[in-house]
Amino acid sequence: MQQSTNNEMNLYFAPLACSLATRIALYEAGADIEYTYVDTDTKRLKDGSNYFEINPMGQVPALCIGHDTLLTENAAILQHVAESFPDAALMPAAPLERARLRQWLGFISTELHKAVFIPLLDPKAAVEVKAYSREKLARRMDVLQHHLTGREFLLNDFSVADAYLVTVLNWGQASGVDIGQWPEVREYYKRLTKRPSIAKGIAEEWAMYQDEQARKAAA
Amino acid sequence: MQQSTNNEMNLYFAPLACSLATRIALYEAGADIEYTYVDTDTKRLKDGSNYFEINPMGQVPALCIGHDTLLTENAAILQHVAESFPDAALMPAAPLERARLRQWLGFISTELHKAVFIPLLDPKAAVEVKAYSREKLARRMDVLQHHLTGREFLLNDFSVADAYLVTVLNWGQASGVDIGQWPEVREYYKRLTKRPSIAKGIAEEWAMYQDEQARKAAA
Repeated sequence: MQQSTNNEMNLYFAPLACSLATRIALYEAGADIEYTYVDTDTKRLKDGSNYFEINPMGQVPALCIGHDTLLTENAAILQHVAESFPDAALMPAAPLERARLRQWLGFISTELHKAVFIPLLDPKAAVEVKAYSREKLARRMDVLQHHLTGREFLLNDFSVADAYLVTVLNWGQASGVDIGQWPEVREYYKRLTKRPSIAKGIAEEWAMYQDEQARKAAA
Repeated sequence: MQQSTNNEMNLYFAPLACSLATRIALYEAGADIEYTYVDTDTKRLKDGSNYFEINPMGQVPALCIGHDTLLTENAAILQHVAESFPDAALMPAAPLERARLRQWLGFISTELHKAVFIPLLDPKAAVEVKAYSREKLARRMDVLQHHLTGREFLLNDFSVADAYLVTVLNWGQASGVDIGQWPEVREYYKRLTKRPSIAKGIAEEWAMYQDEQARKAAA
């Protein structure tokens, strides 16, 4: 890991993985940081080093802060980015609104990301595992559909929770989930993907993802 | 829901469910609040009312704040309790330490609670589903074992993350997970269960759990 000052950050990411949410938040903040690609199949960096030695969970995102602090877990990283760049107003200031932000970060990370999408996206998960996750989908998407009706964002203004939600909804096609069954959720997703930070993040990572797939197919 | 002032709280809980973490945090804070039992099988309160009408996800904990705000998601509720009772020092003040607290809340809620323990505790989960979750166990417990070596708590001092972790580890026996395979984790759990707030919370909820099981067996 490169030596850096305490204000420097390095994001370990994989294309279109949940680390995209952090990239979007950083683009919103206009933050100029390092991005380090992780091959999540081999758990190797481009220089061949073993990512497990950096993050024992082997997951992205992980945010290196300064030269000796590694922060993991999406909800923690997103709040840290929001607090590090307060001018970008990526989280609300009032205590109860901040609690609501954390509620949505919790909902997205536990109920959508881990309980539903991870097994649906995992090629090694058995059909019974995918069925178990799929059973949980409707109640969770109904909650989103109800909440997003008449709303532009999860909270009153754009926040890091929207960066995370759009990243998860972006897995719809790959996971076989037709988000069109929940029209308010689909409209939210379509609207958010036009936001410049999100359009830029998805376009860049989509290109990287295609390169990665082509490279793996050729290997 | 009872009318109450903005400072009043009501915790929707089920015995030995993850709402125990909030109870422990409230006992640490010396907070005197209402506790409302939820039958998580029938999703009914004792007065027969439908819990889904209060919380559309049907999950505990949910914290009613004042008379019109319902906060859900463990990580959000625990941080709200910590912020509401600052004298109890249930979360660190420094930004990077606070980020670390959120990292542990994220790890416990996504990696342990949702990815591993929910399927292992679910009597309706197929054997393939339990096997998929069980495969994830070792790496996560190894991370805990490594981190807890030479440490009393997850952070430098007791925090709401410890309240959550001990609540999840308390499911070891019911989920068929022998935490004795990770001696530092077992010692941490044994040590923490002697802490007065935790000993009181577990004893009370264990008695309620036994009553609930006896009532359901008789029905």
